[in-house]
Amino acid sequence: MNETMIEMGKRAREASYALAQMTSAKKNEILHAIAGALTANADEIAAANAEDIRIGRENGLSEALIDRLSFGESRVCACAAAVKDVAALPDPVGRALWGSEHPNGMRITRVTVPLGVIGMIYEARPNVTIDAAALCIKSGNAVILRGGKEAINSNRASVAVMRGALESLGLPADCVQLIEDTSRQSSTDLMHLNGYIDVLIPRGGAGLIRAVVENASVPVIETGAGNCHVYLDETADVAMAAQIVYNAKTSRPSVCNACESLLVHQNIAEKALPAVAARLAEKNVEIVGDETVCAILKDAAPATEADWGTEYLDFKISVKTVSGVDEAIRHINQYSTHHSEAIVTESYENAEKFLNGVDSAAVYVNASTRFTDGGEFGFGAEIGISTQKLHARGPVGLEALVTTKYQIRGGGQVR
Amino acid sequence: MNETMIEMGKRAREASYALAQMTSAKKNEILHAIAGALTANADEIAAANAEDIRIGRENGLSEALIDRLSFGESRVCACAAAVKDVAALPDPVGRALWGSEHPNGMRITRVTVPLGVIGMIYEARPNVTIDAAALCIKSGNAVILRGGKEAINSNRASVAVMRGALESLGLPADCVQLIEDTSRQSSTDLMHLNGYIDVLIPRGGAGLIRAVVENASVPVIETGAGNCHVYLDETADVAMAAQIVYNAKTSRPSVCNACESLLVHQNIAEKALPAVAARLAEKNVEIVGDETVCAILKDAAPATEADWGTEYLDFKISVKTVSGVDEAIRHINQYSTHHSEAIVTESYENAEKFLNGVDSAAVYVNASTRFTDGGEFGFGAEIGISTQKLHARGPVGLEALVTTKYQIRGGGQVR
Repeated sequence: MNETMIEMGKRAREASYALAQMTSAKKNEILHAIAGALTANADEIAAANAEDIRIGRENGLSEALIDRLSFGESRVCACAAAVKDVAALPDPVGRALWGSEHPNGMRITRVTVPLGVIGMIYEARPNVTIDAAALCIKSGNAVILRGGKEAINSNRASVAVMRGALESLGLPADCVQLIEDTSRQSSTDLMHLNGYIDVLIPRGGAGLIRAVVENASVPVIETGAGNCHVYLDETADVAMAAQIVYNAKTSRPSVCNACESLLVHQNIAEKALPAVAARLAEKNVEIVGDETVCAILKDAAPATEADWGTEYLDFKISVKTVSGVDEAIRHINQYSTHHSEAIVTESYENAEKFLNGVDSAAVYVNASTRFTDGGEFGFGAEIGISTQKLHARGPVGLEALVTTKYQIRGGGQVR
Repeated sequence: MNETMIEMGKRAREASYALAQMTSAKKNEILHAIAGALTANADEIAAANAEDIRIGRENGLSEALIDRLSFGESRVCACAAAVKDVAALPDPVGRALWGSEHPNGMRITRVTVPLGVIGMIYEARPNVTIDAAALCIKSGNAVILRGGKEAINSNRASVAVMRGALESLGLPADCVQLIEDTSRQSSTDLMHLNGYIDVLIPRGGAGLIRAVVENASVPVIETGAGNCHVYLDETADVAMAAQIVYNAKTSRPSVCNACESLLVHQNIAEKALPAVAARLAEKNVEIVGDETVCAILKDAAPATEADWGTEYLDFKISVKTVSGVDEAIRHINQYSTHHSEAIVTESYENAEKFLNGVDSAAVYVNASTRFTDGGEFGFGAEIGISTQKLHARGPVGLEALVTTKYQIRGGGQVR
């Protein structure tokens, strides 16, 4: 293990103890100072970002990636405004969740406390650096950030501004640290910083998430993969179905709550599939399907077994006919990444069956999977969407960035 | 990866879907059937255990280990009674924890659902096989058990009885599975059964826990290590202090909530240490201490740096003088395993400082650390005591064996 990394871990732990004792007012003061400093230095951060983009172009990054990497003055200022929004959210720390009096008179209280030190591993989006730091500070956690090498100049500039804001208040700059070494080794080291990292949150593509889940020895919140399904039940309203599939597939195909696979009850396939396909054709969505689907939709290509498990993140969808809600649930539980799934139905019984039987973070009746989002659920902001079952499932907001502690007040009790 | 293990994972997943849909009444019926079958077959299980003990003696197991391994008829019947107690607890599944209406009219509800499949890796205690299975069934989870090789005959017998009870009700026996291969490889395979295991809970000594934390790629709840501290503040009532230290150290030294290290305010060391030492002498507790401690207690040996981080699990304690509550908190946060710590004080200010500043699962004022236990906290039963911060911290009862799911009921909403 790299000594520098252990030193960062120690400094983060030290800073986390300071943060854990801060009042809400103090933490909000930090967030406002950070927002102010980001706005005041937006030009400097944008200049650093311009350098990242220049290098990115030299290295032949695609325009889609260049767009993700772009962090001009207006994006920096929007990010600063989001930091103020985080300040306005309720403090997740210090809530008493449960309490009881032991028969011997001891009073037991379970209160929310910060997790401690949060590690973030992410890719090319420079806004994650600021968003994650703001959520961590609000929840009383120190953060160690490991962004992608493509954004290193932008990240270095943003973190320098945030650390400056902390120092200007006489507070430990190490509440926010950036790993400037963007080698694979630094990422691996962070995954093994047991004793210093309380939770590691990877945010990015499937490859990154898999690498973290497979290799990390520190606790992880797995985020992001979304092979989401929409199932059209026999009694589905066809116009509603077409609208929901169109929205779930095409409104933003690159995000994790977009629909990747459509299941259709065999008894409405003849009627529903052409209606759905007509809407999807507006965006030139490529369709792969089973035999029945290909017989009904002449433009559809045959789907392979691999298609059922594929997250396209593109204008492409797999379509399968099923014998009913039971087969739909079984198929989803087998192939889904357990993120978000929807049923379109007028049947009360099948709606409830689907809500209870589908093993995913968010299950919808007659609505688009695209709503799985911290903002849409009213959490204000999110650090990712968890597809694991431990600790946090679904949008990971401030409430998931805390743990609890039992405080016991006695008068000399022994057991 | 071993094919047999993947098959077990698939069968567990299948069984978990059946369990997730069962009513509380049905799950309780299973638990009563299991309790009845265990009692009816107690002689058979005890006979299998006698074989384990015979082999254990042949292999030279210590008498302490033989005692842990012993599972005679009366212990089996006590275990069966505990299964009925679990049946009597409230069902943790199906509670609505939160709900909200989206501005667009969708109704969002967050409900508790089973985790799915729980893996348990443990050592020589055969009762864990039954206790864990009962808690998993009650919370709607399938379980895959990997007990120690010393108890394989006992475990095989208990699991056969429990599976028989499930089958007698026409339910899937695979709700409870035992890995009969007790090689190191089977343990490693279980740690990497991603997609089939939702959480792995190791229960046993520090070596086992460390191996699981370092190697598992499935989510883990870390349990058990307890380097617990008692701090005697300047204003401590000396009689109370001696009683609490005596209880925390000697009432059951082999358990994780026993006290391993004593911190004493330098200003009361002269008065408090002899009083505490007199009580500890009743049980011949070995004391190692810093220079001041050794000057006051003639029988104390010098402590080394390693002592501050050692969980003795024996009649031995390390003792250190500190300058006050701040140093005590710093020392604890550095050396503790973050399990349970206590302050003895009459100072309101220092009590609150300690409760808030100590980064452990359970923090006590004027009471023994020995109370950190699911039963004592009123949770009825526990599957272990978590020393991590993610998902569950402190005693892991039924409430920690569930996750949540968002159910969204709409009327055609799109984003």
